[in-house]
Amino acid sequence: MTLIQAARGTQLRCKGWRQEALLRMLENVLENGENQKELLVYAALAKAARDWPSYEAIVKALRTMEEDETLVIQSGKPIGLFKTHAFAPLVLMANCNMVGKWATSDNFYKWQQEGLIIWGGLTAADWQYIGSQGVLQGTYEIFATIGRQHFNHDLRGRFILTAGLGGMGGSQPLAGVMAKAAILAVEVNEARIDKRIAAGYLQQKTDSLDAALAIIREAIERKEPVSVGLLGNAAEVYPELLRRGIIPDIVTDQTAAHDLVYGYIPRGYSLEAAEALRRDNPDRLKADAGASIAAEVKAMLAFKAKGAVVFDNGNNIRTQARAYGVEDAFSISIFTEAFLRPLFCRAIGPFRWIALTGNAEDIRIIDDYILTHFADNSIVTNWIGLARQYVPLEGLPARIGWLGHGERTRLALAVNAMVADGTLSGPVAFTRDHLDAGAMAHPNIMTERMKDGSDAIADWPLLNAMLNCSSMADLVAIHSGGGGYAGYMTSAGVTLVADGSEEAALRLKLTLQNDTGLGVLRYADAGYEEALDEADKKQIRRIKLEQA
Amino acid sequence: MTLIQAARGTQLRCKGWRQEALLRMLENVLENGENQKELLVYAALAKAARDWPSYEAIVKALRTMEEDETLVIQSGKPIGLFKTHAFAPLVLMANCNMVGKWATSDNFYKWQQEGLIIWGGLTAADWQYIGSQGVLQGTYEIFATIGRQHFNHDLRGRFILTAGLGGMGGSQPLAGVMAKAAILAVEVNEARIDKRIAAGYLQQKTDSLDAALAIIREAIERKEPVSVGLLGNAAEVYPELLRRGIIPDIVTDQTAAHDLVYGYIPRGYSLEAAEALRRDNPDRLKADAGASIAAEVKAMLAFKAKGAVVFDNGNNIRTQARAYGVEDAFSISIFTEAFLRPLFCRAIGPFRWIALTGNAEDIRIIDDYILTHFADNSIVTNWIGLARQYVPLEGLPARIGWLGHGERTRLALAVNAMVADGTLSGPVAFTRDHLDAGAMAHPNIMTERMKDGSDAIADWPLLNAMLNCSSMADLVAIHSGGGGYAGYMTSAGVTLVADGSEEAALRLKLTLQNDTGLGVLRYADAGYEEALDEADKKQIRRIKLEQA
Ligand SMILES: NC(=O)c1ccc[n+]([C@@H]2O[C@H](COP(=O)([O-])OP(=O)(O)OC[C@H]3O[C@@H](n4cnc5c(N)ncnc54)[C@H](O)[C@@H]3O)[C@@H](O)[C@H]2O)c1
Ligand SMILES: NC(=O)c1ccc[n+]([C@@H]2O[C@H](COP(=O)([O-])OP(=O)(O)OC[C@H]3O[C@@H](n4cnc5c(N)ncnc54)[C@H](O)[C@@H]3O)[C@@H](O)[C@H]2O)c1
Repeated sequence: MTLIQAARGTQLRCKGWRQEALLRMLENVLENGENQKELLVYAALAKAARDWPSYEAIVKALRTMEEDETLVIQSGKPIGLFKTHAFAPLVLMANCNMVGKWATSDNFYKWQQEGLIIWGGLTAADWQYIGSQGVLQGTYEIFATIGRQHFNHDLRGRFILTAGLGGMGGSQPLAGVMAKAAILAVEVNEARIDKRIAAGYLQQKTDSLDAALAIIREAIERKEPVSVGLLGNAAEVYPELLRRGIIPDIVTDQTAAHDLVYGYIPRGYSLEAAEALRRDNPDRLKADAGASIAAEVKAMLAFKAKGAVVFDNGNNIRTQARAYGVEDAFSISIFTEAFLRPLFCRAIGPFRWIALTGNAEDIRIIDDYILTHFADNSIVTNWIGLARQYVPLEGLPARIGWLGHGERTRLALAVNAMVADGTLSGPVAFTRDHLDAGAMAHPNIMTERMKDGSDAIADWPLLNAMLNCSSMADLVAIHSGGGGYAGYMTSAGVTLVADGSEEAALRLKLTLQNDTGLGVLRYADAGYEEALDEADKKQIRRIKLEQA
Repeated sequence: MTLIQAARGTQLRCKGWRQEALLRMLENVLENGENQKELLVYAALAKAARDWPSYEAIVKALRTMEEDETLVIQSGKPIGLFKTHAFAPLVLMANCNMVGKWATSDNFYKWQQEGLIIWGGLTAADWQYIGSQGVLQGTYEIFATIGRQHFNHDLRGRFILTAGLGGMGGSQPLAGVMAKAAILAVEVNEARIDKRIAAGYLQQKTDSLDAALAIIREAIERKEPVSVGLLGNAAEVYPELLRRGIIPDIVTDQTAAHDLVYGYIPRGYSLEAAEALRRDNPDRLKADAGASIAAEVKAMLAFKAKGAVVFDNGNNIRTQARAYGVEDAFSISIFTEAFLRPLFCRAIGPFRWIALTGNAEDIRIIDDYILTHFADNSIVTNWIGLARQYVPLEGLPARIGWLGHGERTRLALAVNAMVADGTLSGPVAFTRDHLDAGAMAHPNIMTERMKDGSDAIADWPLLNAMLNCSSMADLVAIHSGGGGYAGYMTSAGVTLVADGSEEAALRLKLTLQNDTGLGVLRYADAGYEEALDEADKKQIRRIKLEQA
């Protein structure tokens, strides 16, 4: 098998740039992914396609389809090509959705095994993953906010403890350094540590806790940022630190704790031992992983009791810990409610753009545009400055920036004009994370403790997907959770192609306005003042009821 | 409050016929519904809108919106108006969708109470209900098939026992008479019995079991069809018949058994007593309803053991009985797998059309067209003959007819042409039941025992909804179960308006071809020969994988 890389340059293999763009996005998630041979992109299980025959058939369909056709993909398997119209999406997807009562991790594993379903993660199966940069700004902003809230705007000389250096978690050491802290990341798989070092996301590695602590201690004294990858198991290292009375300033974890069979390695196991048990006795592996997570979370709670700022970074670790006996696991708070909700109320969230010709200069030009034209938005301009300095490119050059309602449209239309007039070397794709205002119902992450109690109402992401289908988006996907996330969430993704055409301008305008507009209205409907204010200010046409 | 009736005639209150059509469909479900004051359409809980302020705001939005705008409705509450484009749906809805782990009936009741959600049934909240006729052909075809399979093509002199004369169940006595049988329907609410008699769906009523049996016995002897409504409780009558050794030929039940609090009345309770308990001690009511259902299903199993043809008609009664101790409840088979699946493989299902001007003559003209142009389709022509004779009109004149891939498109385009040339008095709306090939995942009804085990994969209805959004449909809805159905199903609905325009012809063609095309591919993907054959024969562009 030849290694798959996203095509670069301006030569088309498809009948139009829209199809070509989606094909490159698919290739790009594999190029950026953790294990291309298995089509695995990140988070242990999140795949880009059902299997290789499905991948080949998707490529063939994208290469031959017309602009007024729609390719339907069910959990990574292409099903059919349908005649639609020029304003319809090219690709529609539904990944890993199971009827409520059946949406369990056991069923997921069974049906995945039987070839009926895959988990698409948030951005894997819908070809939107852009490498570790994707979560980098999110993680950075969380650290920076904690700095503002708890450490007088300054994380210099502060110690962050975390674990997991996978596709998502790999962004943590760099985010910590960007926030100027000393960060220790425990990771059980040495290859992952090496991968982060090679990618420029991690500075140092060691397999000795003492050596790691020495590096951290020295950096703290000098108030200099540092990142250390410690080869070890979080379920052993966290309690050991506690035993030694070492209390970090900030504690979190981004191992794949959502998945007890394929994701989290129990204490005392080598990778090989875990793999053997996965084959021979997965129930035993699961029980051991659950017990290890419980031990780790107990240590996290103890750190919290001793004054550390402890938070769940979206890997369902609290749910798993509670299931394995840690009753107060949910006294650890979730990052979304604590930090992101006020932003989501204004539909500010992780927007992304990808230079489809592979030309990094295009990203630089867009960076400059933002620094000039969004000068009043300090979140995004601060970020662009840091990103230029710290963020290595992976796969097709891409940038992430938190922008809100109206801002996204403004940027995308400007970029489309720059594609048209040749300022940029070619088309640019726009996507966003599913962790976006209108796009996700996830009662333990995104929508925990919503003001009106609507945490688990999944109407919203479904409406979001349908509205994007109706607003000329190029690709729309509905995802639900697999593995340990099975039954825990539903979300929607969207991709748009700015190819410089007038039609693309219309696509960008309608989809982006409606995508974020509905996001604001979702929070307005839940009663958040910021969202009500944003809807008024931005003239989003909210329907007001006249109470009888 | 004035009684809501669908507007008739050709005068528009909206800015176009598409909006006007959807407004009349909304009014029509209330006109046909069981309890207009509560916005209840059928099945105890299925509502047309969240509440009256929501209803008023929906009407206002439909009356003022442009053709290139989209109204977004979340569980019966209008949220916002979005600028889309002329090929986009006018209305998008998501009703009663809850994240998997939270999709329980207890949560549903709680969140309904709190005003966060309503259950939309299949055709209530999406304004597609056309009265009892909707299920009439389905029930008729089931009886007729049982006649073919078990009684030598002849139900004359045969005894059907059933219960429930609500919005859906009310079609049973007429379907039984159309199939030439003697049918006894037990119903606990006299008003419901009277309503069916007034509508022409039921012939006689009595509150005496002896009197009812005498009528049935006489009809059987004369081999004449008859329908009797018996005022009583099925949980008492079924076991009593068994005690007396009276074994019907066919047994089913269509009480609202899916709902233990608002749907099923336990034995020994008057309606008033049940209502009081619902207020004061709903848990007690629930337990009593569960025990009554268990008693009723035990009698059904005994009838089966003694030779009766017994089937579940889609009210979740087996699930409830099993939960209340009847372990072998699922040895009663479901009607879909037994009878409908071979039809669904070819996307043959309950298609409907509604004369929006209120002119019954339009339906007669379309009947004639079908008798002439679909002469080779005996299911639909046989039905049109019977429907003309037996089916009283309710609300806006409407007809239901089981048609498949290509047939629906052909009929709809012909109707659109007849609207254009004035043969018909005005526009016609087309809808279908959610119980349609590509439209529903429901592991205990629609998709029970699928060949590939994909019973609970909910990707399919979501793809169906997204594809219809992308194919110029006028209204698209995604529904999940509420009440006792909570967590048990997800489905999609679609409405189209044939206003005689060329654009409508395009809408009808794209949506109907894609709606049924995806339906066929859903069954083809599961490995059904009939579907693979249909896809080949009708040139539906199924993507075939090349196995490595
Ligand atoms: N903020 C968010 O909402 C958000 C975004 C993306 C991902 N996530 C979640 O974050 C988690 C990590 O995602 P990912 O893509 O990096 O997963 P991944 O599978 O690529 O990486 C997980 C890493 O954890 C390591 N690991 C497993 N058990 C360990 C243990 N006991 N001690 C130390 N290391 C261990 C693995 O070796 C692996 O490198 C997942 O649960 C994912 O779903 C959350
Ligand atoms: N074939 C299908 O898939 C299909 C289609 C539509 C509806 N349904 C289901 O069929 C059921 C009936 O639907 P509906 O719209 O007629 O509901 P409904 O609430 O309008 O009517 C139910 C009727 O059952 C009566 N009833 C309740 N308990 C009774 C008892 N113990 N004995 C006798 N009568 C009793 C009620 O008085 C009421 O008239 C529901 O569960 C519905 O979801 C199935």
